[in-house]
Amino acid sequence: MSEVPKNTIETLNLHRESIDRLDTILFYTLAERFKHTQAVGKLKARNNLSPSDPEREKSQIKRLEHISKDADLDPIFAKKVLNFIISEVIRHHESLRK
Amino acid sequence: MSEVPKNTIETLNLHRESIDRLDTILFYTLAERFKHTQAVGKLKARNNLSPSDPEREKSQIKRLEHISKDADLDPIFAKKVLNFIISEVIRHHESLRK
Repeated sequence: MSEVPKNTIETLNLHRESIDRLDTILFYTLAERFKHTQAVGKLKARNNLSPSDPEREKSQIKRLEHISKDADLDPIFAKKVLNFIISEVIRHHESLRK
Repeated sequence: MSEVPKNTIETLNLHRESIDRLDTILFYTLAERFKHTQAVGKLKARNNLSPSDPEREKSQIKRLEHISKDADLDPIFAKKVLNFIISEVIRHHESLRK
């Protein structure tokens, strides 16, 4: 690291501080989201509804395409993240039915 | 769905509306985070620094453990999400060096 200019290290650290603050927003939002999906999971289990809902997922993907475009976020990355979150949530819903 | 009580459907829809709003926060925050990691990636490539930084990742995991506890978020789920995001970011940093 000794060959890296001091202002580069400072700039890197400023970005990392922003990333840490954004991660706090991200994970508190995920926690709030998870409270809602847990409630959905319990409702579904109690009413014998399927843990996954392809129509709902299709509309979520469609919403995400608009958001990605507006937010200048790589839509492939965004879709990967959403699919990852949805599959974790479905896994959790399934565990409620066992 | 016809056997499901009307108020169950209404409750389900209220949760889904919240999930959609939270997803908007989530993906705009991810977009902002990605702008910072893109800048970090360029800085690293320009200064010949490694795309991954195990020390930094260790401190991110440690921060996340505290956040998960405070936010009542499943720490295993949170760690999976962070690892997924970090690996996508490293993949993107590597592509800048090619």
